[in-house]
Amino acid sequence: MSKSGIKVFAPATVANLGCGFDILGLALNEPGDEIIARKTESAGQVTITKITGAQGNLPYEPTKNTAGVAALAFLKKQRADFGLELEIHKKMPIGSGLGSSSASAVAAVVAANTFLKHPLHRRELLPFAIAGEKVASGSAHADNVAPALIGGIVLARDVDDIHRIIPPKSLYVVVIYPKLQILTSEARAMLSDRVSLGEHIQQSANLGGLILGFERSDFPLIKRSLKDIIIEPQRAELIPGFYDVKDAALVNGALGCSISGAGPSLFALCENTFIANNVAQAMTQAFQKHKIESTPYISEVNKEGAKIF
Amino acid sequence: MSKSGIKVFAPATVANLGCGFDILGLALNEPGDEIIARKTESAGQVTITKITGAQGNLPYEPTKNTAGVAALAFLKKQRADFGLELEIHKKMPIGSGLGSSSASAVAAVVAANTFLKHPLHRRELLPFAIAGEKVASGSAHADNVAPALIGGIVLARDVDDIHRIIPPKSLYVVVIYPKLQILTSEARAMLSDRVSLGEHIQQSANLGGLILGFERSDFPLIKRSLKDIIIEPQRAELIPGFYDVKDAALVNGALGCSISGAGPSLFALCENTFIANNVAQAMTQAFQKHKIESTPYISEVNKEGAKIF
Repeated sequence: MSKSGIKVFAPATVANLGCGFDILGLALNEPGDEIIARKTESAGQVTITKITGAQGNLPYEPTKNTAGVAALAFLKKQRADFGLELEIHKKMPIGSGLGSSSASAVAAVVAANTFLKHPLHRRELLPFAIAGEKVASGSAHADNVAPALIGGIVLARDVDDIHRIIPPKSLYVVVIYPKLQILTSEARAMLSDRVSLGEHIQQSANLGGLILGFERSDFPLIKRSLKDIIIEPQRAELIPGFYDVKDAALVNGALGCSISGAGPSLFALCENTFIANNVAQAMTQAFQKHKIESTPYISEVNKEGAKIF
Repeated sequence: MSKSGIKVFAPATVANLGCGFDILGLALNEPGDEIIARKTESAGQVTITKITGAQGNLPYEPTKNTAGVAALAFLKKQRADFGLELEIHKKMPIGSGLGSSSASAVAAVVAANTFLKHPLHRRELLPFAIAGEKVASGSAHADNVAPALIGGIVLARDVDDIHRIIPPKSLYVVVIYPKLQILTSEARAMLSDRVSLGEHIQQSANLGGLILGFERSDFPLIKRSLKDIIIEPQRAELIPGFYDVKDAALVNGALGCSISGAGPSLFALCENTFIANNVAQAMTQAFQKHKIESTPYISEVNKEGAKIF
């Protein structure tokens, strides 16, 4: 890294959290992406000089790359008199349901912001990161981007109205990434556009319970509320063995378990690290029984979001 | 009142609160119902000796009366060695969308409970009050009963899982009761059984915002979130002038305004008593323009629920 270079880490995220489809997400401590950014003299221009960890799956063309688009949008809006060179080091799986594109977009914008004379507040970076994320996902949501940016559990009431909830102290997140391919666009297209009024009411009741449970550190309430009766039943079929893996989590004491984002990763929330370890092991074994390899991650909720080194 | 008599007040309630259909409610300081209860020697029996304020619209037969059913259910389950005589004094309009039947059911059970050697905790009375309320509304919900029983703003995640939120200190509730007749059963039957996924997401986002707003005393967040895009548009037609009255509330500074329960009453939340007074006046005048008489109530959120005298 040259003298003017800066390194930023942005974390993987779990969106939806069961009953919070499109509006809830949380940040992990790991995995995540790293971006190294250097200032250049080409005002408003972005060059991607290196991508590692993506197996050739990500474009170098900045207008097609989430990090590139996010950085370009930021430089343009700030009328920056400088440009950027970006190295993107993917340190998390792509297409895993863990917010990989959001992590890169967030890291790029946070890095770019450090070069401003008067850097913006962290929350003011949200629209640029969302613009980047949109390139990958096709739609503008804040449920991955917002927690990657500011950390915590985040309620994204709207793309410009985000609320961080500091979770219970000992809350651990288990994420299991099975080696399966799911396209977010397909996972979205398969969803019915219709919800029954009864389902809407039940899901809303659980959402309310989950938010209060997080805000009040009420584990039993989190446990009763962490349910998704609308999206999960439709997407479960994309993940062979889903119900066995979920059962393994619950039987071993997880507060709840569902699909992370659009999948194929699953997440489980646990009251402490001891339970989290057991749950991670049981879930991995359950996937093995279905002859699916998987990678477990165990993390507390990341409380600060993207980090500058 | 004889020596052994006891008087209980249970408050009117506003259910739904916009985006919390069937799961959110709050209690008012007034109006409300009063029940005077006396112990008798006829174990498990309930006699209704007097009903005032109901214009002959409520049955004296205890198995058909919400207060009677609630008291009977309670005495039976507790294997009480006594019976009850109840005087029901309706001090609030019936069929107004202000939880009149819940208030009576709650008052009856709270009164009955005082005669036990080992009275139950307030929250343990919920199922009996719900049983009573069900006689009137035909379905078991806690969104009126729970706030009437324990006060505050209540999230009823389920009929046996209720959570009190103590609201912002200066929050005032304006309720306007127009002299219109709406049957709860009709107001319910007219609702579409289908919600679009987009509507579900938007309503959920607002619900999350509203709950966090209440819990954190965040008035701007309450204001942005207090919206109902699913139920209100369907029921508005039952209330002539609805949108004019709502506009009058918002123009005069209300945080939000929607239908109270199944209507026809409207409620508006306000940041202080000054705004509340202006809003109440403007809403009443707006109904007048539609040649509809209405009664305004202004109240803080009731923080303790039913009260024993």
